[in-house]
Amino acid sequence: MDENRLKAKRMGIDAQRKCVAYMSSSCHVCRAEGFNALSRVRLTVGERHLIADLNICQESIIPEGHIGLSEKAWQLLDCQPGQAVSVAHPLPLASMAKVRRKFFGHQLLQADYEAILFDVVAERYSDVQLTAFLAAASKDMHEEEITALTSAMVAVGEQLSWHRGPVLDKHCVGGLPGNRTTPIVVAVVAANGFCMPKTSSRAITSPAGTADTMETMTQVDLSLNQMRSVVAREGACLVWGGAVNLSPADDILIRVERVLDIDSDAQLIASVLSKKKAAGAGAVLIDIPVGPTAKVRTDVAGERLASTLKAVGERIGLRVHARITDGRQPIGRGIGPALEARDVLAVLQNRSDAPGDLRLRALQLAGDLLELGGVPVGEGFRRAEQTLSSGEALRKFLAICDAQGGFREPTKARFKHPVTAARNGVVRDVDNRVLARLAKLAGAPATQSAGIELHVRLGDAVIEGEPLFTLHADTRGELTYALAYLDMQQEIFVISEEEAS
Amino acid sequence: MDENRLKAKRMGIDAQRKCVAYMSSSCHVCRAEGFNALSRVRLTVGERHLIADLNICQESIIPEGHIGLSEKAWQLLDCQPGQAVSVAHPLPLASMAKVRRKFFGHQLLQADYEAILFDVVAERYSDVQLTAFLAAASKDMHEEEITALTSAMVAVGEQLSWHRGPVLDKHCVGGLPGNRTTPIVVAVVAANGFCMPKTSSRAITSPAGTADTMETMTQVDLSLNQMRSVVAREGACLVWGGAVNLSPADDILIRVERVLDIDSDAQLIASVLSKKKAAGAGAVLIDIPVGPTAKVRTDVAGERLASTLKAVGERIGLRVHARITDGRQPIGRGIGPALEARDVLAVLQNRSDAPGDLRLRALQLAGDLLELGGVPVGEGFRRAEQTLSSGEALRKFLAICDAQGGFREPTKARFKHPVTAARNGVVRDVDNRVLARLAKLAGAPATQSAGIELHVRLGDAVIEGEPLFTLHADTRGELTYALAYLDMQQEIFVISEEEAS
Repeated sequence: MDENRLKAKRMGIDAQRKCVAYMSSSCHVCRAEGFNALSRVRLTVGERHLIADLNICQESIIPEGHIGLSEKAWQLLDCQPGQAVSVAHPLPLASMAKVRRKFFGHQLLQADYEAILFDVVAERYSDVQLTAFLAAASKDMHEEEITALTSAMVAVGEQLSWHRGPVLDKHCVGGLPGNRTTPIVVAVVAANGFCMPKTSSRAITSPAGTADTMETMTQVDLSLNQMRSVVAREGACLVWGGAVNLSPADDILIRVERVLDIDSDAQLIASVLSKKKAAGAGAVLIDIPVGPTAKVRTDVAGERLASTLKAVGERIGLRVHARITDGRQPIGRGIGPALEARDVLAVLQNRSDAPGDLRLRALQLAGDLLELGGVPVGEGFRRAEQTLSSGEALRKFLAICDAQGGFREPTKARFKHPVTAARNGVVRDVDNRVLARLAKLAGAPATQSAGIELHVRLGDAVIEGEPLFTLHADTRGELTYALAYLDMQQEIFVISEEEAS
Repeated sequence: MDENRLKAKRMGIDAQRKCVAYMSSSCHVCRAEGFNALSRVRLTVGERHLIADLNICQESIIPEGHIGLSEKAWQLLDCQPGQAVSVAHPLPLASMAKVRRKFFGHQLLQADYEAILFDVVAERYSDVQLTAFLAAASKDMHEEEITALTSAMVAVGEQLSWHRGPVLDKHCVGGLPGNRTTPIVVAVVAANGFCMPKTSSRAITSPAGTADTMETMTQVDLSLNQMRSVVAREGACLVWGGAVNLSPADDILIRVERVLDIDSDAQLIASVLSKKKAAGAGAVLIDIPVGPTAKVRTDVAGERLASTLKAVGERIGLRVHARITDGRQPIGRGIGPALEARDVLAVLQNRSDAPGDLRLRALQLAGDLLELGGVPVGEGFRRAEQTLSSGEALRKFLAICDAQGGFREPTKARFKHPVTAARNGVVRDVDNRVLARLAKLAGAPATQSAGIELHVRLGDAVIEGEPLFTLHADTRGELTYALAYLDMQQEIFVISEEEAS
């Protein structure tokens, strides 16, 4: 099949992080193979294969005998300019038959999910196929099948073991802006001598993930070896999970979930528990904030999620403790990577202006974890409080940042815009979803310094013209779009006209 | 916002028929707006808007102050080189909230579907969003909601009226290779003086659609005005529905369905009935082939589909008659656009080698339609048979082709490969799905002449080495892939070793 070899040309195009091949409409391989504008093609360089979307180009763009590659394809094939690339029709993707079976209501087994996720990790699924899988595997998922999906996600990635115990971990199911307890909790737990090799995600549908927040203060894209040496030195780390390849399937699925803004319980549980299992944890604390505009809206839904998390955890050999927390309003003052980092530092530094709600929430979670690790039940909270007040937690946090490449101060935004109360009254309600959307339009999480700084909380009395919150943006365009969105909304803060009590 | 204007550059890239904008990483608009590699952008030229995927490029590709456009974006914006394009963040796509509601199990109303499909038709949905909509609107769909979806699909497109009656139409739900009765049926019905302005689709998951087959004999991408004048002259036409914009939403959804290879009843009913309603039909005959490897596999499923089609038809003012037909094996000899066209012509020409099964099936359907139009019940089949035998149907068919731009003979493939029987025996079974996949790998429907020519039928006695079917392909690469797939299959024709009876 020598006639199907073409020379690699780096196009210098980032095609939304996808693999794209650019071929000339007059190319002999296109004609010989019957490729057309909707084809996907299988590319081979040495031992490396991938499937790419084919974009047909005018002759002038691609020199004769060449094939253009997007940045992602160029990296995955590890190409040199002019290197030979073999081009063929992709083999029929057998695992899509399993996706169709699930779509039409059949239950899949772990082996089915492994077959699908193996192809997903090999970048053989197009966005359309990935979305179909996510949609199919989000419906009619019960304990047994969620376990199968979770185990498959662990199986297609790397799995760590730490040879020390107990290894503790935590996760917040999200949906509550600014709920950035993790850096504080890790610092407290590690300062008490427990092992907590924490990997975090970047934001999926929120304005900041813990990895985004930590990245404003230190390096988070550590390799597995770098992560191991940080944990060996400090007993803990705070890194981005994607760079250590613990759950490569999840990282690809998240690309699609981010666009859809849809999280299902099944995908959430599989994503969270597979990451924890792969990271080598033995016991996990799950924080489930419940509130009318949080991700989980009712106590019943929270309890159901907690119970499925525990059951699936048990089936895969993971002790899970879930805490339902108050998710009625944001935690702390900042929403967005750098603004949340400032809140975290204020708490760790025991500053008088530190947000009390964030401090309390972090101490409760740290206390739970200490008890999961072996501290006598009823003693956890007090132990955590001592560790924080004494400055031990701050020292541990800075030591972890130092081990990860050094501590730096979070940046500040170039543009600020205060939004004020339209009348006198008491703050009765706040819409977390609109706040999150607003922070994202202002540029979070891609722009570290962007987001929202809150000045009031539920129950506060405000007077007309007093600032409720301040928008932070790093470009004028983003500030403009956030303000345009704000104009379209009803009140984000509901202010009742009755007297403050 | 003058700073957000860039000059249009035609990239000459067909990005899988999608709208893509190419911007330089150093572009001032990118920086000012905070665009990144996963952004979608809103482009405006004069009164025309669209939303495109943003691909970030190296500086060398896009001249300073320019923005590159894919072929689809260039066409939709109707650009001139160097013309000013305004670039902005897309407004939040409000209708995606409705998709999410449906995804999480809520029923949507017609107004919801109209809002979604309005955005779909405006090319505001990415592939991920389109797939999520299709997946969501394929589950838990009952009569009332399918009606809402169907009416919405009619509402977002053009609707024809013919000011003459009765206007008849037909549709086959597909899944049976080679079942190309439509050209014959239209010719018979129109020769009897009824109005049948037939619009057909291109193949979705099959090796050929009626529009693909007709395109091998005449022009099918007629404008609405051209279609009107053909119908005014001949009382009927056989055109591609996509070019007359009757169901623009459906044409976009099909792009995704093609990749997924998933058809749900709800999408099928909405797609079929919306097209018929939009085309101005008053009565429709639906052919539902049932067989173990056809699209509909059991009589029960066929009856359920027929009953929902009738019920939804009634709600939107369309008389629907459904005929369950034998879908156990392919109809005719050819599978693929040109090979099916040859069968159609042989029947119309009353040739002695014409496939009898195709002739019979077409006459049954034409008879039903004549009765729907007013011919006394019980007289339809005989009337259809007379019209065909007398040559009136052939004359009408050629007259329709002539009105559409002239008749031409279907082309022939460059490569043929016979596949022979492995032993003596009787043909007991055939796998329609594998046959269809094989024809597609050989190049159908994109390559008109590609496909399969069958030499045997169920019940035929065959001897070892006798050809069962012949693969037709226009390139050696496609022939190779089809043969490689064939090697991976079990027997396509099951030959039992007992004596032929």
